[in-house]
Amino acid sequence: MAVYTQLSAEVLGDLIAQYDVGELVSAKGIAEGVSNSNWLVETTGSAANGRRFILTMYERRIDIAELPFFLGLLDHLAANGCPVPRTIHDRSGASSRMLHGKAVALIEFLPGVSVGQPTPAQSRSVGRVLAEMHAKAQDFSETRANDLDPHASARVLADCGEEALQAIDPALPAMIGVANEVAENWPQDLPQSIIHSDLFPDNVLMLGETVSALIDFYFACNDAMAYDLAVTHAAWSFSGDGRDFRPDVGRALIEGYEAVRPLAQDEREALPLLAQGAALRFISSRAQDWIDTPADALVTKKDPMDFVRRLEFYRREGKDVFAA
Amino acid sequence: MAVYTQLSAEVLGDLIAQYDVGELVSAKGIAEGVSNSNWLVETTGSAANGRRFILTMYERRIDIAELPFFLGLLDHLAANGCPVPRTIHDRSGASSRMLHGKAVALIEFLPGVSVGQPTPAQSRSVGRVLAEMHAKAQDFSETRANDLDPHASARVLADCGEEALQAIDPALPAMIGVANEVAENWPQDLPQSIIHSDLFPDNVLMLGETVSALIDFYFACNDAMAYDLAVTHAAWSFSGDGRDFRPDVGRALIEGYEAVRPLAQDEREALPLLAQGAALRFISSRAQDWIDTPADALVTKKDPMDFVRRLEFYRREGKDVFAA
Repeated sequence: MAVYTQLSAEVLGDLIAQYDVGELVSAKGIAEGVSNSNWLVETTGSAANGRRFILTMYERRIDIAELPFFLGLLDHLAANGCPVPRTIHDRSGASSRMLHGKAVALIEFLPGVSVGQPTPAQSRSVGRVLAEMHAKAQDFSETRANDLDPHASARVLADCGEEALQAIDPALPAMIGVANEVAENWPQDLPQSIIHSDLFPDNVLMLGETVSALIDFYFACNDAMAYDLAVTHAAWSFSGDGRDFRPDVGRALIEGYEAVRPLAQDEREALPLLAQGAALRFISSRAQDWIDTPADALVTKKDPMDFVRRLEFYRREGKDVFAA
Repeated sequence: MAVYTQLSAEVLGDLIAQYDVGELVSAKGIAEGVSNSNWLVETTGSAANGRRFILTMYERRIDIAELPFFLGLLDHLAANGCPVPRTIHDRSGASSRMLHGKAVALIEFLPGVSVGQPTPAQSRSVGRVLAEMHAKAQDFSETRANDLDPHASARVLADCGEEALQAIDPALPAMIGVANEVAENWPQDLPQSIIHSDLFPDNVLMLGETVSALIDFYFACNDAMAYDLAVTHAAWSFSGDGRDFRPDVGRALIEGYEAVRPLAQDEREALPLLAQGAALRFISSRAQDWIDTPADALVTKKDPMDFVRRLEFYRREGKDVFAA
């Protein structure tokens, strides 16, 4: 959560002039994104493109070669009526440009705020929009593999090593075996689309009970749609530390999803395992970040145990929770 | 430059409901302020108060007892036509509230961007607005002492100690003696008002060559107006590292100031010394921050030498630079 790069008004003004959006009026660096710098930009505007935008500078983690996939996906979904910000193309038609050696994109600003503790009604709306997104993404022409699947989670945990995991929490080393087991049993033939795969409340903007925007598609990839629902279930239906499951919020999410796209029998039966895979994806990345982050760094480390608790819950009660 | 506190949509929505500004539509944490957290907030709006605001949470450094001075000053200046954001008062009439044990204020959003390398025309505009601000602040009823005057700079440098200063740069220990000399000769009877005392380009928003806002008045205090002009001269007329003086920018600043409020003879003659005092104020605070900041902290330390170069320039050429 930072702005890694300082851009002067002069540099920003020159950049904005490359787009049909009028002249720069305001630019505030915003504290969003862990691998990007972002500015909330206001201009004098144009009829085609409006007056407010998010300017994103891609600092690290994202491979620039993948930007056409991510930005093209936003445009495809927005054009098909999904609440997703479209990218503003520059005067030459490009969806991204280079600035000081880094890729930047100008993206539509959409209103809305991220809820802290979702209500069932909000969760139902998110389920509905997620299903619509899956449906509309079916005919997007480009593809991207999921490099954070359960096989990857198992690998990441093994690479952390039992000793380092033990030092974080005595319950963590056992996750290596769990991850291998989940990966071995992972279903191969569930219906796929492009999935968001990181749809935490932070990445959903809402106005009351309505979803105004899904944002931050930088983990989007081709994978099982039911897996995306499982990720979203793990992200929305618990207190942050994973100690309290909120059955009404979880139920409303799935009901909202099925109101648009009913789950097939094999998808529903796979949910307890898919949810364990979802938990392992965050356990593994958080464990890795924990080990990689210096003890005195000024960033808040996310506790992998928040998702170990979810994983244990899904192993214990997944069959009941996801029963039709 | 960070957001130190996370506030959920629910908490922000409840807070915003205490003001006559409509309902919360958007809130983005912005990367401004070193001792505050700030959000750019949009609401459905009200006729009296508009739709966009900066929400500031006071995290540290600022004494809450001083908030009425700072916020009252904004209101006084805005009411008198200065380009300064006014504070939005809550439904009970208060200019600040407590939230989670910290003071917060909702402040008018003003457009504009901070220039990186000011032109003479921009510098002239800033001089003019600074003089207008000094004039309008004369009849503000509250007062606040300057706790960062040259005596304080001398004390801070002495407290750092020669050894620690030497470790930053061999030229720094000599600044203790310079600060004592400047403090001893400091003029006592120059005309005073409330001064901004930190008017770097970061704290001025511009639209082209027009000043749209002076912001960040949290160092404002009663002191000599010519000293504020000297601070602004040191902040605007050099390259960031202090190596290159820009005579046309410096000249335009003073011309703009004098177009509104001509300097008296004793003010003009004092400028070379006042400018040294200004440089020492930043040398001392930067040296202290340098010593207090861990070597591996993820913040950019500001080099005190940037202002040692300015100080040496003013000692060498101040008489000529500020000659009428």
